[in-house]
Amino acid sequence: MLKLDDKGLIPAIIQNARNGEVLMLGYMNKESLKRTITSGDVWFYSRSRQELWHKGETSGNFLKLKSLIKDCDSDTLLVQAEPTGPVCHTGNRTCFLQDDTNYRFLEEQDLG
Amino acid sequence: MLKLDDKGLIPAIIQNARNGEVLMLGYMNKESLKRTITSGDVWFYSRSRQELWHKGETSGNFLKLKSLIKDCDSDTLLVQAEPTGPVCHTGNRTCFLQDDTNYRFLEEQDLG
Repeated sequence: MLKLDDKGLIPAIIQNARNGEVLMLGYMNKESLKRTITSGDVWFYSRSRQELWHKGETSGNFLKLKSLIKDCDSDTLLVQAEPTGPVCHTGNRTCFLQDDTNYRFLEEQDLG
Repeated sequence: MLKLDDKGLIPAIIQNARNGEVLMLGYMNKESLKRTITSGDVWFYSRSRQELWHKGETSGNFLKLKSLIKDCDSDTLLVQAEPTGPVCHTGNRTCFLQDDTNYRFLEEQDLG
């Protein structure tokens, strides 16, 4: 059985099923997990908006489910999906910007 | 600046830098992030043991840091690393078992 956190959520790593690129981390509750499996589109639970989130509903950039795997202690999901367009709200193909390396983004405060 | 959760943690997706395989999801606090960057080995904060966790210290299977990227809203890290051995405590190379597909692992209770 899946282990949800105290808010009823489980983190879901989204990986591009075609090339292995990690695209984003989202959170699912039971209902978004059910809709993901039954519809074939990835659904999340938006923690900021506190509502179900059909990824792509606004942008038109959906995530088409290819596989869904849980980890060894059942508290994380790995979702392999095919994106129909850029995944990030910034227009990038991934939420992890590949040109931001060498930890330049880290600030003094990030390290204590 | 990174956004830590209410426990001072940030999720870190660990990806094999060689082949793109997603290996695990761990959590870092500021101190584990600092140690990761200064040592070149990946350090986590263990939520169950509530202590800093030098991945590999017990098993001998370390994660050698190759790159570290934050996501667009600064609340998730993507760590690309080279594992020196199996990453999962079960002895598997990844915590996400590739043979557990077709959602067979999901139980009635997981879907509400």
